[in-house]
Amino acid sequence: MSSGSKADALMTVSVEGLSPRAKEIHSKVVAFIRQHIQPLEDDILRKKSDSKYISAKIKDLQSKARQQGLWNLFLPLESDPGMKFGAGLSNVEYALICEEMGKCPISPAAFNCNAPDTGNMEVLVRYGTEEQKRTWLMPLLDAKIGSCFGMTEPAVASSDATNIQASIRREGNEYIVNGHKWWTSGAMDPDCKLCVFMGKTDSSAPRHKQQTMILVPMDAPGVKVVRPLSVFGFLDEPGGHAEVTFTNVRVPVTNVLLGEGRGFEIAQGRLGPGRIHHCMRLIGNAERALELMLQRTMDRVAFGKPLAALGTIQANVAQSRLEIEQARLLVLKAAHKMDHYGNRVAAPEIAMIKVVTPNMALNVIDRAIQAFGGAGVSNDFPLAAMFAGARTLRLADGPDEVHLRTVARIEYGRHHRRQQAKL
Amino acid sequence: MSSGSKADALMTVSVEGLSPRAKEIHSKVVAFIRQHIQPLEDDILRKKSDSKYISAKIKDLQSKARQQGLWNLFLPLESDPGMKFGAGLSNVEYALICEEMGKCPISPAAFNCNAPDTGNMEVLVRYGTEEQKRTWLMPLLDAKIGSCFGMTEPAVASSDATNIQASIRREGNEYIVNGHKWWTSGAMDPDCKLCVFMGKTDSSAPRHKQQTMILVPMDAPGVKVVRPLSVFGFLDEPGGHAEVTFTNVRVPVTNVLLGEGRGFEIAQGRLGPGRIHHCMRLIGNAERALELMLQRTMDRVAFGKPLAALGTIQANVAQSRLEIEQARLLVLKAAHKMDHYGNRVAAPEIAMIKVVTPNMALNVIDRAIQAFGGAGVSNDFPLAAMFAGARTLRLADGPDEVHLRTVARIEYGRHHRRQQAKL
Amino acid sequence: MSSGSKADALMTVSVEGLSPRAKEIHSKVVAFIRQHIQPLEDDILRKKSDSKYISAKIKDLQSKARQQGLWNLFLPLESDPGMKFGAGLSNVEYALICEEMGKCPISPAAFNCNAPDTGNMEVLVRYGTEEQKRTWLMPLLDAKIGSCFGMTEPAVASSDATNIQASIRREGNEYIVNGHKWWTSGAMDPDCKLCVFMGKTDSSAPRHKQQTMILVPMDAPGVKVVRPLSVFGFLDEPGGHAEVTFTNVRVPVTNVLLGEGRGFEIAQGRLGPGRIHHCMRLIGNAERALELMLQRTMDRVAFGKPLAALGTIQANVAQSRLEIEQARLLVLKAAHKMDHYGNRVAAPEIAMIKVVTPNMALNVIDRAIQAFGGAGVSNDFPLAAMFAGARTLRLADGPDEVHLRTVARIEYGRHHRRQQAKL
Amino acid sequence: MSSGSKADALMTVSVEGLSPRAKEIHSKVVAFIRQHIQPLEDDILRKKSDSKYISAKIKDLQSKARQQGLWNLFLPLESDPGMKFGAGLSNVEYALICEEMGKCPISPAAFNCNAPDTGNMEVLVRYGTEEQKRTWLMPLLDAKIGSCFGMTEPAVASSDATNIQASIRREGNEYIVNGHKWWTSGAMDPDCKLCVFMGKTDSSAPRHKQQTMILVPMDAPGVKVVRPLSVFGFLDEPGGHAEVTFTNVRVPVTNVLLGEGRGFEIAQGRLGPGRIHHCMRLIGNAERALELMLQRTMDRVAFGKPLAALGTIQANVAQSRLEIEQARLLVLKAAHKMDHYGNRVAAPEIAMIKVVTPNMALNVIDRAIQAFGGAGVSNDFPLAAMFAGARTLRLADGPDEVHLRTVARIEYGRHHRRQQAKL
Repeated sequence: MSSGSKADALMTVSVEGLSPRAKEIHSKVVAFIRQHIQPLEDDILRKKSDSKYISAKIKDLQSKARQQGLWNLFLPLESDPGMKFGAGLSNVEYALICEEMGKCPISPAAFNCNAPDTGNMEVLVRYGTEEQKRTWLMPLLDAKIGSCFGMTEPAVASSDATNIQASIRREGNEYIVNGHKWWTSGAMDPDCKLCVFMGKTDSSAPRHKQQTMILVPMDAPGVKVVRPLSVFGFLDEPGGHAEVTFTNVRVPVTNVLLGEGRGFEIAQGRLGPGRIHHCMRLIGNAERALELMLQRTMDRVAFGKPLAALGTIQANVAQSRLEIEQARLLVLKAAHKMDHYGNRVAAPEIAMIKVVTPNMALNVIDRAIQAFGGAGVSNDFPLAAMFAGARTLRLADGPDEVHLRTVARIEYGRHHRRQQAKL
Repeated sequence: MSSGSKADALMTVSVEGLSPRAKEIHSKVVAFIRQHIQPLEDDILRKKSDSKYISAKIKDLQSKARQQGLWNLFLPLESDPGMKFGAGLSNVEYALICEEMGKCPISPAAFNCNAPDTGNMEVLVRYGTEEQKRTWLMPLLDAKIGSCFGMTEPAVASSDATNIQASIRREGNEYIVNGHKWWTSGAMDPDCKLCVFMGKTDSSAPRHKQQTMILVPMDAPGVKVVRPLSVFGFLDEPGGHAEVTFTNVRVPVTNVLLGEGRGFEIAQGRLGPGRIHHCMRLIGNAERALELMLQRTMDRVAFGKPLAALGTIQANVAQSRLEIEQARLLVLKAAHKMDHYGNRVAAPEIAMIKVVTPNMALNVIDRAIQAFGGAGVSNDFPLAAMFAGARTLRLADGPDEVHLRTVARIEYGRHHRRQQAKL
Repeated sequence: MSSGSKADALMTVSVEGLSPRAKEIHSKVVAFIRQHIQPLEDDILRKKSDSKYISAKIKDLQSKARQQGLWNLFLPLESDPGMKFGAGLSNVEYALICEEMGKCPISPAAFNCNAPDTGNMEVLVRYGTEEQKRTWLMPLLDAKIGSCFGMTEPAVASSDATNIQASIRREGNEYIVNGHKWWTSGAMDPDCKLCVFMGKTDSSAPRHKQQTMILVPMDAPGVKVVRPLSVFGFLDEPGGHAEVTFTNVRVPVTNVLLGEGRGFEIAQGRLGPGRIHHCMRLIGNAERALELMLQRTMDRVAFGKPLAALGTIQANVAQSRLEIEQARLLVLKAAHKMDHYGNRVAAPEIAMIKVVTPNMALNVIDRAIQAFGGAGVSNDFPLAAMFAGARTLRLADGPDEVHLRTVARIEYGRHHRRQQAKL
Repeated sequence: MSSGSKADALMTVSVEGLSPRAKEIHSKVVAFIRQHIQPLEDDILRKKSDSKYISAKIKDLQSKARQQGLWNLFLPLESDPGMKFGAGLSNVEYALICEEMGKCPISPAAFNCNAPDTGNMEVLVRYGTEEQKRTWLMPLLDAKIGSCFGMTEPAVASSDATNIQASIRREGNEYIVNGHKWWTSGAMDPDCKLCVFMGKTDSSAPRHKQQTMILVPMDAPGVKVVRPLSVFGFLDEPGGHAEVTFTNVRVPVTNVLLGEGRGFEIAQGRLGPGRIHHCMRLIGNAERALELMLQRTMDRVAFGKPLAALGTIQANVAQSRLEIEQARLLVLKAAHKMDHYGNRVAAPEIAMIKVVTPNMALNVIDRAIQAFGGAGVSNDFPLAAMFAGARTLRLADGPDEVHLRTVARIEYGRHHRRQQAKL
């Protein structure tokens, strides 16, 4: 290959291809997980329903991680150019770290890199006023409080974001917030103090100018955490997923984010990085599931030989590897495009990975479960919980079908333009 | 078609094709479920972890069902020719009733038709001594006690039944039972009083003569219910699935079933009907999931029209119908062969349905979950729990792979014989 | 099972379950194929493009088959109650014979049971005038001539039958026929003398009353066989699939079938039995492919053991058996419903099998091809040709998508009615 | 992203990321195909069986392409560092050009870049003596002659390369070559003058030292082209795929390549680049199929709207895009690793793409066929031929199963080493 070619460095994405600084952070994260988090895994899995116990373990890990400077790694240089708040990694660089976190539950929380706090912090960094930053961003960056995101509603199909029924109505110097939300992740945690709430300020505005985002303190009168929702049988404590009602909740007008009618715009901007994070954690889930499967099938004997010697097991291992490799490359391509050309240019890839990675992870995890037998569906291994989590990601932020439609429309649009260009 | 032909009645299997008596029982079961069980569904789903509450509801339903004679319907005429203990239905007749029970959780328990009690009762009817019947069968038939089946072990691949490590050693008039079991369904219920335990009496005997089944009282010294196992986070209370250890448990020699070395034989006989029941309940699961999907997609609107108007939803509905119809016919064929030619002749079909129906049910339920969005993975609908249950049935009684291997060997054997016959 | 129950004979469909007469015909067909057709297979496959050679072989087989009374077996008792023209078999009975024919190419032609002649003959039996029968039906029943069916058009999506653009315009005692048809199977054979032609007589009539069927002699001025179409690379000689243009073709008014505006009605009636035939031949295709796969994998050695010993091969064999069994039961159920309740009642099942069986056959044949290596895609075995044929059946008579939509609509309709009934 | 990072150029692989020289060649190839080859497509497809006609068209295109310097583009810089014979492109650079060629049949031949000549030429460049180069390489580079590769044998499973039965026995200054080969692509062309023949010189040597490659002139006495083999009915003229027998063929000892016992080594080296080429052409096939599908579904109307408006069509389009993107990235990663670390390091990826791309292409093409209806399986569009070609690539050079096994073994090996490293 002719030297100097840009393509020269193609596909070198891997720890080796990273900048020295990113490489160092990456290896510190890997070491931290191995040394401090992995050993807790069995314990955490078996005490999944003991919310307090898990919270305490997380706090302990957080203080260790922070000491090592492994903190708020998620904030991209683009949102935080002065590296005032975070580590200033690129999307590609952080993506590779997300993969590592995905291999072990509670890792993201240990580094203060867990959803939905990450998305909320990024929104505050980009759009928050000085006061909003002081009040909400700083304690979030310090993991002193938690937050949730009030978007999905039980009454309408969340596949269509313009369906939202929650209302935000101005009255003097206040907004009156009303709405019925659910799948509000994080809200079950007693430390959750802030809800980034999406509602409509003006139903007569153009479709994507009706929505507004506003900061609602969780202890404001009228906010009621109704109940936790389970994912299959998991409650995902301590944060959980809550049904929350907002009844005539009054917040000062200064709590609005960016301005009335700009909620959809903020939501769109928030999606890109969040999807990269989710998708790379799913890659990590899948790598972990495959690793567990490899170990188990080497250890277990049936009909006189290790399961690893069976052709069907080998085919499943190989198929999993094929799917993981392909999905990872696509996620990294999306991250790379975001880094270099922005979220809008990366939109097709972001839609694609939203479908590709959860389905891939479900396939890989399911094969591992099958190889484990009964142990696979139990809490003795993280497989069942990872499966449940991956399954929700085929629904959260719009179901597969919506993203496939988006991809198809992009294809038709491109084809149409190509045909025009030929004429 | 020429009248009088046996094929004349082919495929008329449906409520219409049943004998008047079976038809009557069937419609009473349907009515009972609609009137008494269905209305409790939401309540039960939301209180899934309140074991006592559910137990009380079940006891109440049981007394109503028994009053209507809807009781112990599972005992086949073949095992109980005098209809001394049960309803004397054929496998086909009961299969169609199982489908109905599969549509609604806790239905099987309401009619005292829930696993593993059904399998244990059938074993006692067929092989129990008078004393064993008096002591264990009668209270089980009366639902005064519950029972469990101690088969699967954490240390060995359950895909190979000859792997069993539990031991049953004779010492005078007693057997000393030692073993480590798990996935012992039913054992978490405080009413569970009996374990039908499988272990080896003679490791030097031929491969399928080493195992023995013995009746172990759950309150015998040395029996320890270690912990409940979860299935994708579900504990399936009140019976649950337990890890149980048996340490030098002493039981009188009269507790042995059928005789030393006959455990494998009993297990094989037990499998056929149990699989029909499981598979038809899975058909019921799938029908229910499809019904929920139809209703939901008619109710929900996205992008200006009901989800039911979307081509992808329609394709999913249709694909589900295709898969359900085919699977049901195969299960009914297996049941029919069992009724007319016995379990041995039906063995190929029994192996086939063990693979076909859980996979079919998982597909159908998963499509329904997808159409429901977040609600689908929660406990607001029975979909997530049905999915978890169906998933375990790809593992219980041997994973798919073992049954596919059985089917393949039968094919090769048949082909070989056909080729021989041509020579 | 209680004796006397209708369900008693459930699923006994098999040669054993047939009436003595049907059983006799079935075994004669099996013997004839084994003795006379099977030995020609290799020869025919290698001379696939020598149309004359194949025609001669078919004629020879036809005279032998007719001598044995194995002739025009397809005509159902229902269409031909006096058994004036055919064998008077039920749909179920003939279906099982179709399966046998599907195992070996050119079998259907040998028994004068090949499409599209069968459909055309049945239409003439049911709706033909005495003159039409004398002129066209009798020579078709004698295999003295062949026929084709002019339905599909290159310019419009055949998934929507009302799209048809061909016109049939009355002028005095004649109709002027114009149209551009393709996939007109059979038309390449020089013996093809008749086209059953579908066109519109009245574009202003209600949607399903616009179409008319008319008998067009292939030697009428204005009929032009433009070219053969290939299926993958196969020309399916001698009959082939032709592109045919009809330019101002004049036929006497007496050539109309049943009456103006009744074309759609005839087409619908024609579909049911034809689909059973196609589907059961596909079952036969699949059984044959599986048989070939079993033999090949027992014979071939790789890495020191026969392919049959590999787990992936065994899994493929088993999966194929699972799919074949289920599909066959569904086709037989459809046939049974047609026999007992008519085509209209059987419509859901007829739509289902149209999707299920070609896809099943493609899966099974593809696995066999894979096990054969290069030989599998060549003409040394019938696999490649069977694959190509099965692939077209996902398109002919409407693509999968149309039938899935039909099935979905039936589901929604049923659900709606059930919900109404509950109120 | 920190500037200067190697990962900076990550994933920029695309025409834009190429070196100016590669970019120029790429765009000239694209223009040439559009201007000179695309317009011939319909003609070529319809005259698929007219071998002479197609040969003439190719010769004509070749002379035009050569004038533009678009010639022998395949020879990698690595094999031909002085760019004496070829264009000196890297694997990544040529891969992107292969994709373009894959969009249109006969493109590879037009640029003298068609298999198996490319592989044979590369072998001669790397291992040929001066005399061998003069005699065979130069006319091949000039497209004055064609060549074939004698590897696969009808009698043994080609999945196991050590199975080869052909023999090469030395007798004085000659080797006596005997063997029965098939799927010898290119051998049907009267211009085919050379067979690169693989056989065993020493069956007692270690498993991978038994094989030798030797140059056999096709006009040597004892070489017999027995017959063409078809691929789903296609003969792939003019080169075709032949069954060829070699009976006591005598060639001078100087015709041996590299030396006795080095055949396996040469074959391995030959595989890497060839697979990249095949896989990228499959990507091109898939892109073309998708483009055809987009156009067709925009043009065709059913049930009152264009097919493109149907949800199922959109889902199929999107799914195809997802699969293509992922597969392409994996192939490019393999090419990149070959460029930078050599074939051995890239071996895992080379095994992966051998499974991934043909299956992906088959999925994509099959969806396009389905959208086209009958036209899709005919020769009016290149879909059916592309499907047939892609299907053989799941078998050629070892079936999927063999490569999946390789991938699984690599996984187990890596896992084992990782576990060791942790101890």
